[in-house]
Amino acid sequence: MTETSQGSSFHSMWRELLPIGRHPDSHGYRRFAWTGADTECRAWFKEQAETRGLTYEVDRNGNQWAWLGDPTAGDAVVTGSHLDSVPDGGAFDGPLGVVSAFAALDELRARRAEFARPLALVNFGDEEGARFGLACVGSRLTAGQLTVEQAHRLTDGDGVTLPRAMEAAGHDPDGIGADPERLARIGAFVELHVEQGRALDLSGDRVGIASAIWPHGRWRFDFRGEANHAGTTRLVDRRDPMLSYAETVLAARREAELAGAVATFGKISVEPNGVNAIPSLVRGWLDSRAADQESLDQVVGGIEKAAREYADAHGVDLDIVRESFTPVVEFDHALRDELARILGTDTDLKVPVLGTGAGHDAGILSGSIPTAMLFVRNPTGVSHSPAESAAEDDCLAGVLALADVLEGLACR
Amino acid sequence: MTETSQGSSFHSMWRELLPIGRHPDSHGYRRFAWTGADTECRAWFKEQAETRGLTYEVDRNGNQWAWLGDPTAGDAVVTGSHLDSVPDGGAFDGPLGVVSAFAALDELRARRAEFARPLALVNFGDEEGARFGLACVGSRLTAGQLTVEQAHRLTDGDGVTLPRAMEAAGHDPDGIGADPERLARIGAFVELHVEQGRALDLSGDRVGIASAIWPHGRWRFDFRGEANHAGTTRLVDRRDPMLSYAETVLAARREAELAGAVATFGKISVEPNGVNAIPSLVRGWLDSRAADQESLDQVVGGIEKAAREYADAHGVDLDIVRESFTPVVEFDHALRDELARILGTDTDLKVPVLGTGAGHDAGILSGSIPTAMLFVRNPTGVSHSPAESAAEDDCLAGVLALADVLEGLACR
Repeated sequence: MTETSQGSSFHSMWRELLPIGRHPDSHGYRRFAWTGADTECRAWFKEQAETRGLTYEVDRNGNQWAWLGDPTAGDAVVTGSHLDSVPDGGAFDGPLGVVSAFAALDELRARRAEFARPLALVNFGDEEGARFGLACVGSRLTAGQLTVEQAHRLTDGDGVTLPRAMEAAGHDPDGIGADPERLARIGAFVELHVEQGRALDLSGDRVGIASAIWPHGRWRFDFRGEANHAGTTRLVDRRDPMLSYAETVLAARREAELAGAVATFGKISVEPNGVNAIPSLVRGWLDSRAADQESLDQVVGGIEKAAREYADAHGVDLDIVRESFTPVVEFDHALRDELARILGTDTDLKVPVLGTGAGHDAGILSGSIPTAMLFVRNPTGVSHSPAESAAEDDCLAGVLALADVLEGLACR
Repeated sequence: MTETSQGSSFHSMWRELLPIGRHPDSHGYRRFAWTGADTECRAWFKEQAETRGLTYEVDRNGNQWAWLGDPTAGDAVVTGSHLDSVPDGGAFDGPLGVVSAFAALDELRARRAEFARPLALVNFGDEEGARFGLACVGSRLTAGQLTVEQAHRLTDGDGVTLPRAMEAAGHDPDGIGADPERLARIGAFVELHVEQGRALDLSGDRVGIASAIWPHGRWRFDFRGEANHAGTTRLVDRRDPMLSYAETVLAARREAELAGAVATFGKISVEPNGVNAIPSLVRGWLDSRAADQESLDQVVGGIEKAAREYADAHGVDLDIVRESFTPVVEFDHALRDELARILGTDTDLKVPVLGTGAGHDAGILSGSIPTAMLFVRNPTGVSHSPAESAAEDDCLAGVLALADVLEGLACR
C-alpha cells in the first residue's frame, strides 16, 4: 500500500469538488442534472480523465466514461458512481465513488500494476432524479429500462423536458436510448458508495460489500378537494384535502412500522398554497421500501386503502399513481464472493455483506451485467443531508479496498 | 331606480376586468400586489376615475382614490374595496366592491343626485397579503397599524421586499406610513363585498349588512427535524417533521370543531422537498378565527399545546410565530343603523345583519373612522377559488343598495 500517494490524490480531488453546487445558506448540495452545477462537475470529471491520459467519452445517454486500455476489447472492469445530488444533499453520496475510482487508479499506478483487462471510470448522469422525478435516468436509459418515449415525457418543475435540458447543457438528446453494445463490452461493474445507514457503524467495520437492494418505489397521491376561504367556510361545508393528506402521512408510518419497512412523505405540492385558502389540491409523494416484495406490497397496499377511506370521509377525490418501481436486486453472487476473496476475508467477518434500502445505478445495471457494490462507513447513517459524512480514514480505506478489487479483477 | 344605466355600466366594467391576471389553466386570478396583473388593474381604476371626471390620486401607501367634490373639505363619504387576489382566487372578492362603487356613482348621476359631502372611491393596495404574507397592507399602513419598519421587513417568496416591489411597479416607497390627515377627512367608509359564506343564501336575501368581523390571525409553525435518506434511515433513527406537522393539522380540525370556530393549514413549505429525503423543515401556516377572543384563544392554545407534544415525541424542534392578528371588529353601530334605515328595513328582516370570519380593509379602518359593510349573496359560499360566484341580479341589487346608501349619506 502506498497511503501517501492515494491519500494526497484523494484529498486534492475532494477539495476541488467541494465548492461546486453548495448552497451558501444550507451548505447542502444542489447539483441537479443538466444544470450549471452539474456541468461544472462534469467538466471536473473530463479534466481528471484527461490529466491521467485516459480516453474520455460521453455515451449517447450523457454518461461520462474514462478508459484505460481499449474500450472495444471487451470484458472491461468498470467502476464509478454519480456526481449529481438530491436537493440540499451531502458531499459523499455519489462523489465518493467517483473520486475513489480516480484515487484507486492512482494507487494502482503507484503500485505499477499491469492491467490485463480494460478499465473504465464512469459518472452516470441524473442518478438522484431530483430534477425530473425519476432516479437513475442515465443507467436506466442505457440498460433499456427507460424507453425513449418515457424519457421524452420527463419534465422538471419549470416545465423543461429532459431532452431540452440535455440540449441546453450541450448534450445532443437525439441519440438517447438503450445501449446494449456498450454493456456487452463490460465484464464487471463495481460501485463504491458511502453507506446510507448505520450497519457498518454498528458492526465496527470501515468497508462492506452489498448483498441486495430492497425493492422500492415512488407513488404520487393527488388529493383533490375544493379551494375556499379559510375564514368563512364552515367546517361541515369543507372538502379540505390537507386533512386526508395528514391522515395518510400517519397511516404510512404505522404501516411501515408493522412491516419492518420504511415509508416517507418527503415531498408535497399544494394549490393554491395560500395562508387563508383551503387547498384545492394536496399532492404528496410516498417513497417506500422493504426487505422483500411481499412486505412492500403489504405496506403500500395498507397505505392506499387507508388513504382512500380518509379521502371518501372528507369528500375528497384521490388519484394514486406509481411513478417508479424497482424490484429487489440481488447482486451477482459470483462477483460478490470474488470481492470477498480479494479483500482477503470471510464475508461475515471483517468486510460484512449488507442489504440496503437505497437505489443505485449498480442496481439498475445488475439486470444486464455482473455488478457489485462496496460501502464505506457512515458514522451517523445520515444521508441526503448536509450532515452526511464519512471519516477521512474510512474514505481512504475505501479507496484501498477498491484498488485491491480492481487489481484482483483487472490486473495480472 | 334606473336599472338599465347602472346595469350596463356594471357589465362593461366587469367585462374589462375579467381577463386581467386570470390563469389560463386554473381560471383563477393571480393578481398579486405590485405585479404586472395588479398594475393592469390599477391602470383600469385610474381610467375609470378619469373617464368620469373624478380627481384621481395615489396616496403615500399606494392606495388609489377617485374624488367627486373637494377632497380637503372633510366629512367625506368613501366607498370601494380592493382589486388584488389570493392565489387562484375568484373574480368577485374585492373587484365587486370597486366596480359596484363606480356603478353606484353612475346610478346616482343618472338620478341627478346632488352631493352635499365629498365622495371618494377607493382601491386599497395589497388587501389579500398573498405576496408578502400580511393582509390589508395598504389600509394597515394608512391607519398606523403597520409601522414603516415592519413594512420594510415584508419580503415575498423570491426575496423581494415590499419597498422594492413598490418601486419596481412605479410607486415611491419613501413616503409610506400612517396617514392620519387623510383619515381625518373621511366621515364614513362603506365597503361592499361578496359574501364569503352562505348566510344570505340560507336566509334568502340578496344583500346584507355586516355586524362584526371575527378575531383572526395567522401563525407559522416551523417543525425542524433532520434531513436524511428516505430509503436507508431506520424509523427509530428518524426525526421526521412531516409526522408532527400531520398530527398538528388534525389537532387543528379537532380544536376548531370543539369551539365552533375555524382553523386551516392551507400553506406549507418543505425543505428539501425531495421524494427520497426525510424533510429537515416543514413549515405550515395556521389560519384561525372564532366568534370571540376567548374561543380563539382556546382553539389556538389547544393546537399549540398539541403541536409541542407531537414535536417532542418525534425529537423535532418547533417554533411558533404569530405573523398577524386582528382583534374582533364591531362595526360602528350608528352607521350600521343608518344603513339599515336608508335601506328601509328592519335589520332582522329584508337586509339581515351578519358576522363574518373574513378580514377586510373596512375592519382595519373601523379603528379610525366610522365604517360599515354591505354583503352580496354568494349562492355556494365558495370564495378564494375560481368557483366563487354571485348572480348577476344579486350584483345589481348590491349596486342599487350601495347607491341608496351613498345617496342617503352624502346627498341633499
